Amino acid sequence: MTPESTVYIGKKGTMAYVLAAVTQINQHGATEITLKARGKAISRAVDVAEILRNKFLTDAKIKDIRISTEEISGDEGNTIKVSAIEIKITK
Amino acid sequence: MTPESTVYIGKKGTMAYVLAAVTQINQHGATEITLKARGKAISRAVDVAEILRNKFLTDAKIKDIRISTEEISGDEGNTIKVSAIEIKITK
Repeated sequence: MTPESTVYIGKKGTMAYVLAAVTQINQHGATEITLKARGKAISRAVDVAEILRNKFLTDAKIKDIRISTEEISGDEGNTIKVSAIEIKITK
Repeated sequence: MTPESTVYIGKKGTMAYVLAAVTQINQHGATEITLKARGKAISRAVDVAEILRNKFLTDAKIKDIRISTEEISGDEGNTIKVSAIEIKITK
């Protein structure tokens, strides 16, 4: 069993998510981190992955990147389609 | 030789790039399209890929997704690091 952990990327600053991922690895022993983001946060997820790989986890590798379309329920019973990304990083 | 084509995703509306990619395939015989984007345009590149795959090129597959960090020269001789994505789609 590989200890896995997911970090959901939202509207906070990039470094908040970098710190969350580093904490999962250093304090909770995760060896695989999945960054998940939707919509405009996708760019931030890529920033987080690149900062992790270049500065904080230089021995880490990007194992897989997947993109998809998710449907979100709107306030008025409608559905909105939004792009999503999953970036899997292994130590 | 596989006819390859690159579409650079910038600040225009998403559909402008979807149309550019469809034109490369339908009129110019490209069988492989690479979408490239940097910074905030990364989210738009994912949107373009998802719209292509779900609506216009339903037989297309995402062959590869790579992320990287590029250095851009600033106005004052400084360099700025920016995340980049390449999404390769094959017909």
